[in-house]
Amino acid sequence: MKSINVGLLGIGTVGGGTYTVLTRNHDEIARRSGRDIRITRVADRNLELARQVTQGKADVTDDAFAVVSDPAIDVVVELIGGYTIARELVLQAIANGKHVVTANKALIALHGKEIFAAARAKGVIVAFEAAVAGGIPIIKALREGLSANRIEWIAGIINGTTNFILSEMREKGLTFADVLKEAQRLGYAEADPTFDVEGIDAAHKLAILSAIGFGTHPQFDKAYTEGITRLDAVDIKYAEELGYRIKLLGITKRSEAGVELRVHPTLIPEKRLIANVNGAMNAVVVKGDAVGPTLYYGAGAGAEPTASAVVADLVDVARMMDAAVDQRVPYLAFQDEQLQDLPVLPISDISSAYYLRLRAMDKPGVLAEVTRILGDRDISIDAMIQKEPEEGEDQADIIILTHVTVEKNMDSAIAAIEALPAIAGKITKLRMEELGR
Amino acid sequence: MKSINVGLLGIGTVGGGTYTVLTRNHDEIARRSGRDIRITRVADRNLELARQVTQGKADVTDDAFAVVSDPAIDVVVELIGGYTIARELVLQAIANGKHVVTANKALIALHGKEIFAAARAKGVIVAFEAAVAGGIPIIKALREGLSANRIEWIAGIINGTTNFILSEMREKGLTFADVLKEAQRLGYAEADPTFDVEGIDAAHKLAILSAIGFGTHPQFDKAYTEGITRLDAVDIKYAEELGYRIKLLGITKRSEAGVELRVHPTLIPEKRLIANVNGAMNAVVVKGDAVGPTLYYGAGAGAEPTASAVVADLVDVARMMDAAVDQRVPYLAFQDEQLQDLPVLPISDISSAYYLRLRAMDKPGVLAEVTRILGDRDISIDAMIQKEPEEGEDQADIIILTHVTVEKNMDSAIAAIEALPAIAGKITKLRMEELGR
Repeated sequence: MKSINVGLLGIGTVGGGTYTVLTRNHDEIARRSGRDIRITRVADRNLELARQVTQGKADVTDDAFAVVSDPAIDVVVELIGGYTIARELVLQAIANGKHVVTANKALIALHGKEIFAAARAKGVIVAFEAAVAGGIPIIKALREGLSANRIEWIAGIINGTTNFILSEMREKGLTFADVLKEAQRLGYAEADPTFDVEGIDAAHKLAILSAIGFGTHPQFDKAYTEGITRLDAVDIKYAEELGYRIKLLGITKRSEAGVELRVHPTLIPEKRLIANVNGAMNAVVVKGDAVGPTLYYGAGAGAEPTASAVVADLVDVARMMDAAVDQRVPYLAFQDEQLQDLPVLPISDISSAYYLRLRAMDKPGVLAEVTRILGDRDISIDAMIQKEPEEGEDQADIIILTHVTVEKNMDSAIAAIEALPAIAGKITKLRMEELGR
Repeated sequence: MKSINVGLLGIGTVGGGTYTVLTRNHDEIARRSGRDIRITRVADRNLELARQVTQGKADVTDDAFAVVSDPAIDVVVELIGGYTIARELVLQAIANGKHVVTANKALIALHGKEIFAAARAKGVIVAFEAAVAGGIPIIKALREGLSANRIEWIAGIINGTTNFILSEMREKGLTFADVLKEAQRLGYAEADPTFDVEGIDAAHKLAILSAIGFGTHPQFDKAYTEGITRLDAVDIKYAEELGYRIKLLGITKRSEAGVELRVHPTLIPEKRLIANVNGAMNAVVVKGDAVGPTLYYGAGAGAEPTASAVVADLVDVARMMDAAVDQRVPYLAFQDEQLQDLPVLPISDISSAYYLRLRAMDKPGVLAEVTRILGDRDISIDAMIQKEPEEGEDQADIIILTHVTVEKNMDSAIAAIEALPAIAGKITKLRMEELGR
C-alpha cells in the first residue's frame, strides 16, 4: 500500500483531534483510500504536548519551517491559525512542492488568491474543507455535489458561538451580556469574543462559500458584517410571536447587479429547518436552480468534528496527488481562468424584507403616518403588531414586517418615520429572509 | 476544451430534467468542469417526446442498445428504471468500455455486486448519486466527505411519497387511506403505490447507503421492510402528545453482531431536525465517530433535483475518466477487495426503544401486571400515559414508551401482555429512535 507522509503544524485542539482521528481510524481510512496515511512529523511550540499526543510515534519539533521543507513530507496540514506565520508556512510548503490541507478560514478568506496562484504554479493541491462549518462537508457539496447547478444563494449558521448565545437568549429570555458570560464560562466563547460576536469569523467563512458558489476570488474585505452584540432580547420575543427565529446568518446571493455578501442577525420563518438549528451547531442552506434548497447540518467546531474534515481532505489529497491537474477539482470550484471579479453590492443596495420595531405615542393617526411613509416608498407591509402601552405609560411598541425592498429605500423610510413627533427614539431594524424556493 | 459525448437512455421525467439542466447550465458547468459535456444521443421508445425535448440538437433513436454500442459515446446515462432491460443495457455499456451514470436504485441495490464487478474488470466508472435521495449529494458526503469516520449509523427519510402522506396525516388528522387518495390525485403517489408505501423503494436506497457506510455489497434481499399502510392516525396523535413525530425511516447500524438494515415507521423526538422534515422532502442523518451526527436535506425526487445529481455525476466522470483507477473513489467507498460480507441481523435481533399502545379494562391492577411482565424481561419504561375511557366504555388506551431492548424480548413481553384477560385485542408496537449522540 502506498504511504503518504503528513507533516502536522499545530497540535492544539484541532491538531490533537486530527492526530487522534487519523490514528484511531487508520485501518478504516486505509480500507477506503487504499493508502497508508500517517502523520510522521509534528511541529508545535509546546513540545511536551506534542510528545504527549504522539507518544513517540511521530517526530516532534518546535520548528514548523523544518517540517515544510522536509523532503520526506508529502502533505502539510496547517492548523496553527492566524494569517501571518500561517501564510508564510503555507506559501513555503507550496514552494517546496507540498500539498496543503488547512482549517484556516481567515487565511483563505484574506490570502486565498495569492495562495491558490502559488499552488497553481507548483501544481499542488490546497484543500480547506475544515475552514467552513467544521465537520459538515459543505465545500465538497458545493464544489462537486451541486456542480450541475447555477447557485442562486447560500445562507448559513456558520458560527457556533453566536448560535449558542442566540439559542440561550431565546430559550431562557436572557440578555446578550448574561449569556455571553455563561458561554465564556462553558468554553463556547473566547475571553475576547469579538471575532465571533461581531460576525467576523462568519464573514471569513461566508467569503469562501460565496467564492465557491459564484466563481470569484474570496472577497472578505467587501463583506458587510453586523454582529449580535446590540441585539435586544425583546426583538427575539417579538419575532417569535410573529412566527420567526433570529439567527446570525451569513448570506450571499447573486443578482444581475452583483453579489450580496453580508453577515447579520436575521429573522427566519420558524417552519424552516435552519430556524430550528440550536446550540453550537452549524447549518448551511444552498439554493441551486436545479436542485432547489438543500441543507447541510452538523458540528461546526470542536476537535474531532473539525478533524473529520481535515482527514477527509487528506484522503482526497492522497487519492489525487499524482493525478493530472485537470483531473482535480479546482480550488474554488471553477476553473482558475474562469474566476470572475463580480462586484460586491454595498449594504445600501441589497434587497431584503425587514422587521422594524418603533416606539410610538399611543394616539390616533400615528400608524396612518407610518404606513403613508412606507407606502410613499412602495414598501408594502406584511404584518404589524401594535402592543398595548405598559401600565402608566403613554408609548407602545409597534412591530412592522415589510416585504422585500432595497435597503437604502428602507433607510430613507426609517429616517422619515423617526422624524415624526409621535415617534420616540431610534427604530430597530432587522433583516428578514424567507429562505424558501 | 475537451468534449464528452453522453448517450441518454430514457427521456421521461428525470431524463427530460437531465437534458434540460445540462443544456441550460452548459456554460456554468463548463466553467466548473473545464469540459464540454453534451448529450449527443438519446434513446426512448417515445420518439416524438425525445425529438420534442432535444429539438434537433441530439440524435434520437428508439434503440437503446444502439446507443450503448455507439463508439462515439463516452458515458451512458441510464434513466429507464427497472432491473431487467436496464441491467442488460448497463452491463452492455460497461462491456463496451463506457462509463455509466444511473439513477436506478433498484438496479444498484439488487445487481450492484455484478455491475461493479463488470465495471472493475473494464476499468470504467459507475456513478449513482441520483439513486438515493434525489438531489441531495448524500453518496458523495458519505463516500468522500465523511471518509475520516467510522460510520456508526445512518437514518433517513428517503421516500418522499410516504413522508408526504405522514405529514398530511399528522397535520390534518386524516387516515392513511384518505391521504393516499389525495397524494395520488396530486401526483405524489403512483396508481399502484406498493413500492413506496410498503417501504420497498426506501429499502433499495437504504441497502446502498448501508453498503457505502460499512463497506459491504448491497444487501437489499436481507432488509426488513415495514410500510405505513397499517399505521393508525391515533398513534401519530399519541406520539405527538409525548413529543414525538412518526416518520418512515430507513435505518442501518453497525454493531459487533452485524448490521441492522430496516425500514419502518419510527418515532423520533420532535426536537430532532429530521423530525421536522415535512412534505415530500428527504433528509438523511449520518453518525460518524469523529464528526458526530450530520444531516443532509433536500428534494428527494422530481425532474430537476434528480437531474442535479445525475449531472454532478457526469461532471465527476468527465473529470476522472482518464485518471488511474486508484485515483477514483471506489464504487462503494471502500476499496473493492476490502468489501466485507457483514451479516445482516434478523429483525428479532435488532435493538430499539418501543412505543406500545394497548387497550385495557379500566380496573385496578392491570398496569401492575403489565409493568411486571416488562420488568421480568428487563425492559424499563421511559414514559406512560393512561387515557380516560370514552363515555360509556370500560376500556381505555395505555401508551408505553420503553427504553432500548432486543426486539425478540419485546415481542415476548407483548405476547405475555396480550394473554392477560384485562387486555383487549392486539398491541400496537412501533419502534423509536433517539437519533442523538
